[in-house]
Amino acid sequence: MSESQPPARPSGLFIVFEGGDGAGKSTQAALLSERLEASGRTVLRTREPGGTPIGEKLRALVLEHGHGDVDPRTEALMFAASRAAHVEQVIRPALAAGTAVVCDRYIDSSVAYQGIGRGLGPAEVLEINRWATGGLAPDLTILLDVAPDTGRWRRTSGALAEDRLEAEPDDFHARIRAAFLDLAASAPERYLVLDAGRPVADLAADIAARVAGLR
Amino acid sequence: MSESQPPARPSGLFIVFEGGDGAGKSTQAALLSERLEASGRTVLRTREPGGTPIGEKLRALVLEHGHGDVDPRTEALMFAASRAAHVEQVIRPALAAGTAVVCDRYIDSSVAYQGIGRGLGPAEVLEINRWATGGLAPDLTILLDVAPDTGRWRRTSGALAEDRLEAEPDDFHARIRAAFLDLAASAPERYLVLDAGRPVADLAADIAARVAGLR
Repeated sequence: MSESQPPARPSGLFIVFEGGDGAGKSTQAALLSERLEASGRTVLRTREPGGTPIGEKLRALVLEHGHGDVDPRTEALMFAASRAAHVEQVIRPALAAGTAVVCDRYIDSSVAYQGIGRGLGPAEVLEINRWATGGLAPDLTILLDVAPDTGRWRRTSGALAEDRLEAEPDDFHARIRAAFLDLAASAPERYLVLDAGRPVADLAADIAARVAGLR
Repeated sequence: MSESQPPARPSGLFIVFEGGDGAGKSTQAALLSERLEASGRTVLRTREPGGTPIGEKLRALVLEHGHGDVDPRTEALMFAASRAAHVEQVIRPALAAGTAVVCDRYIDSSVAYQGIGRGLGPAEVLEINRWATGGLAPDLTILLDVAPDTGRWRRTSGALAEDRLEAEPDDFHARIRAAFLDLAASAPERYLVLDAGRPVADLAADIAARVAGLR
């Protein structure tokens, strides 16, 4: 699906943090926001899913009916609807006002978790979400990449044996991780991929340096 | 977006009624359902938006926040989500069991009202809804076409003068009507287009004859 009327480039800055749960997205988003504010910028911290009244209600509906009661396509479309509202009501107006928007999760999370994780197809989920957002892409996506060794170490350190079910989360984790890395590789100029296992201060410094060079 | 794994053709019969409000869809759907039941078929009467618990909640959310609070893309995605649930939880299982499903409104209503009426683009809205439904198309769509004269007569019979605002609904009606007719023209073998102004019994007879010839 093409955008017949691409919106004018907003004057703000749109930074997204992506990565698996526990990768440190919230910590780094807070540190970056503090740094941007200290440099005199107006910053809006936000997150997905949610970010608007209707988005929060859609999020609650997914959670309330989730895990089997809602099929994957319905869920993906509800997340896309929530994102459309978030972009239209919150992100675009902030960018138009020159604000720096720092967002936990965006389209890539849907591509990874629903396109790959739930098997809907990454290209299809990407296309629907591009339509949902009117093609609004982040200026920079910071992917906090969790190496599979970390997950394996965490899990096996407390367990004596693995059965088939215990092994599945690792495979799931590996597929989600690969989906994020594939997205980053498809547009390296708009991504910063960092090893989430490095010290918090080192990651923050790398992120600050890359963001400072954006404009 | 392509369907990599098209579902097997269900053994039931999927009949959709489309057309503007007041075209007589409910009346004709009820008459057709009675006739199919009399012929020994199991019939499921359903409608959109809604048809499932989550669909009803999405419908309530759209209505609650509607008319300005929800932007057109968010609304279109919420309707598509509701339709995905309706197809997955209600329509496909019924068709698989050999049931005749008679449904008030389906994808064409989204294409007409959101794609054309709200300016989102008919091709884009069609594509999203094809994805939402896994490509499930009706065996027959019965379009109850309301000629524009009817609308004009209704409006001007009670008014002495027209201003620009009063003239707009006619233009809106004409565009919605054209959208439905365009969809019918794109696949005439899967449509029955009838003048909704004809007598109810005549319309019912034409519908019954066409449906009897389906299989």
